[in-house]
Amino acid sequence: MTLSTDLGSAYAAQIKAVLAHRLPPGRVVDLSHDLPPHDVREGGFLVRAMAERFPTGSVHLVVVDPGVGGSRVPVAVACRNGSVVIGPDNGVLVPLVQALGGGTAYAIDPARVGGGPRVGTTFDGRDLFAPAAARIARGASPRSLGPPTDLRPCGGQPPRPTKAGGQGTVVHVDRFGNLITDVPTSWVPRGRGAVRVRVGERLRRLPFVTSYEDGGRGHLVVLGSSFGTLEVAVVEGRASDRLRARVGTPVRFAGQGPATRSARRNRK
Amino acid sequence: MTLSTDLGSAYAAQIKAVLAHRLPPGRVVDLSHDLPPHDVREGGFLVRAMAERFPTGSVHLVVVDPGVGGSRVPVAVACRNGSVVIGPDNGVLVPLVQALGGGTAYAIDPARVGGGPRVGTTFDGRDLFAPAAARIARGASPRSLGPPTDLRPCGGQPPRPTKAGGQGTVVHVDRFGNLITDVPTSWVPRGRGAVRVRVGERLRRLPFVTSYEDGGRGHLVVLGSSFGTLEVAVVEGRASDRLRARVGTPVRFAGQGPATRSARRNRK
Amino acid sequence: MTLSTDLGSAYAAQIKAVLAHRLPPGRVVDLSHDLPPHDVREGGFLVRAMAERFPTGSVHLVVVDPGVGGSRVPVAVACRNGSVVIGPDNGVLVPLVQALGGGTAYAIDPARVGGGPRVGTTFDGRDLFAPAAARIARGASPRSLGPPTDLRPCGGQPPRPTKAGGQGTVVHVDRFGNLITDVPTSWVPRGRGAVRVRVGERLRRLPFVTSYEDGGRGHLVVLGSSFGTLEVAVVEGRASDRLRARVGTPVRFAGQGPATRSARRNRK
Repeated sequence: MTLSTDLGSAYAAQIKAVLAHRLPPGRVVDLSHDLPPHDVREGGFLVRAMAERFPTGSVHLVVVDPGVGGSRVPVAVACRNGSVVIGPDNGVLVPLVQALGGGTAYAIDPARVGGGPRVGTTFDGRDLFAPAAARIARGASPRSLGPPTDLRPCGGQPPRPTKAGGQGTVVHVDRFGNLITDVPTSWVPRGRGAVRVRVGERLRRLPFVTSYEDGGRGHLVVLGSSFGTLEVAVVEGRASDRLRARVGTPVRFAGQGPATRSARRNRK
Repeated sequence: MTLSTDLGSAYAAQIKAVLAHRLPPGRVVDLSHDLPPHDVREGGFLVRAMAERFPTGSVHLVVVDPGVGGSRVPVAVACRNGSVVIGPDNGVLVPLVQALGGGTAYAIDPARVGGGPRVGTTFDGRDLFAPAAARIARGASPRSLGPPTDLRPCGGQPPRPTKAGGQGTVVHVDRFGNLITDVPTSWVPRGRGAVRVRVGERLRRLPFVTSYEDGGRGHLVVLGSSFGTLEVAVVEGRASDRLRARVGTPVRFAGQGPATRSARRNRK
Repeated sequence: MTLSTDLGSAYAAQIKAVLAHRLPPGRVVDLSHDLPPHDVREGGFLVRAMAERFPTGSVHLVVVDPGVGGSRVPVAVACRNGSVVIGPDNGVLVPLVQALGGGTAYAIDPARVGGGPRVGTTFDGRDLFAPAAARIARGASPRSLGPPTDLRPCGGQPPRPTKAGGQGTVVHVDRFGNLITDVPTSWVPRGRGAVRVRVGERLRRLPFVTSYEDGGRGHLVVLGSSFGTLEVAVVEGRASDRLRARVGTPVRFAGQGPATRSARRNRK
């Protein structure tokens, strides 16, 4: 079982306590407890990246749940690859479910999960999702937890990248300040080793490299990220600071043509 | 075995290295290594919350130990529920021990623990508590580690909340900036869905909700927290910033009566 | 198997996904994922401290890899103590390998590792080192991964401390702001309980204590750190802030003689 939350360690520990009653030692793998708070969009992107390579049959418990206690539906999704994804139906599960081949969602009925008495109404991760995940991990079928339901389309998701024009969005800023976009690396041919990039307002012509080293310390570069999408980085520096970019900033990769006049004038 | 520390990952890893010699793989569950540094009071509150739901028979190793190398006594507490709590007798263990039904404390005698040669005098977590915890986890009795002792009453604890007047203290600010108090949720009847709250100097009348969503984005609300006590939150915001409150700030929950003139005038 | 990286949890999770295919549950121990980004020097110091006490036969996977995708060589080092250290040959592995008795390095040949198709060129931790480490953990010999090679001498390391004059360097600032140096504690006799210390420009005479408590809250003290080297600390405060010191700051411990005139004038 994997565990991905925005809760910080103190709340995550309480989830582990529930799981410790029901699973053998060593079965729970912490993926992250410091996902961006309340951020369904970036959380969904990261959860997919973190969890999608785990073996089939895994149970992925995801708690990024700003609507806890409200109207969003708690779900367990039986994915086509044999894994199960459990969490709130607020969009955060969608990218992972898609990556695992899609699947059938079931609305979790608290009465069928058991678990202990609830303390407060703000911690379904501990009081509802953890006991549900433990039941699945011990062999119960997702369908035993409640009736089928449709996963909400994720209204919170950014506009999809468009191939014509190489337009997309920064979907993650990693620990190093690298800007991870949603534009597939394959959309931009490496050609002569340079690419025109617009981050926010400004157009630049940047080297398209395969190693941070290739760019030289402090220089802006474009790479194919480990997510399969394009990345803008400063070698041993922070592109997010240099370009004042963050999750949601629009980007455009214009291929390997010569730099425009404006790009020449502006480039560092 | 659970592991709760304020040490950060680099020191915690050294504790795990000691445990790896003595326990089968997968037995150690990380609860937190980023507890507030040197803070016995908030640490004690969090350790209880994190560890109290683990199965009976657990060994809880706690290292928040500003007095390491000094006169505080290292202890192992055999709790009434069958679990054992190990750490420095500086007050940080008290809330967890109480939650586990109380118990008998034994002063750990370094000569009975074994462990390797000590490097320096500032890391009992690695050099004393970890080997002691490993012995317990492998079946030794806490009483075999040293003579009985009395747990120090925790002078560092805040004044207890008083039911008359609903007075208490902020005992934890969580990752979301929510203010967790020590005032039991059951002390304030939900009544007409509103509650008068004083945080620091100012009195407000706030909605008493069961879901962050109920409040509307950016609004102050009161909820029953997942700790069983009252919580003041800003929906998808940080109450700690808005109210300039932190651990130790006094709070008062005055029930569901109509707002006072002053509260009306001041409320957001 | 231990896992030490500067990657943050989101990238580290992807390494765990690869390992989950090949190792039984509970075999991977997280040491740290928040090592200082790109910092081979401090990373190397910490990795040694975190990993050196693990049982013989451990596999230590280390990913602090600013040159990923470039010319640095991926290596597996068969250490004399029977453990294996895997990571980039950029100096970060050297302190741990030395602590484990030295050993023979092999250049990892990607063709011999297998692993899945590579996505991008910037995440050898997931795409190359993790599958290599899993093979070793399952019994393969490091020599089966590629030809022998020599570990690069670590040009990035600070000058070695010199016993004459007790000169050294701050090699780590821990979570509490304590300054950990590379000057062995045994070089400075405790004598009358005081030691002259120069951190940066200024000379001070400080008490040489065995417990933070001994110094009194807010006072500067010297201790024998848990790393076996001298440490400068502020009791329940942050020496790094008080002395404006950081990794790389030169230090000098001048023994227990009387304070110089300048030290007397300057001390706090």
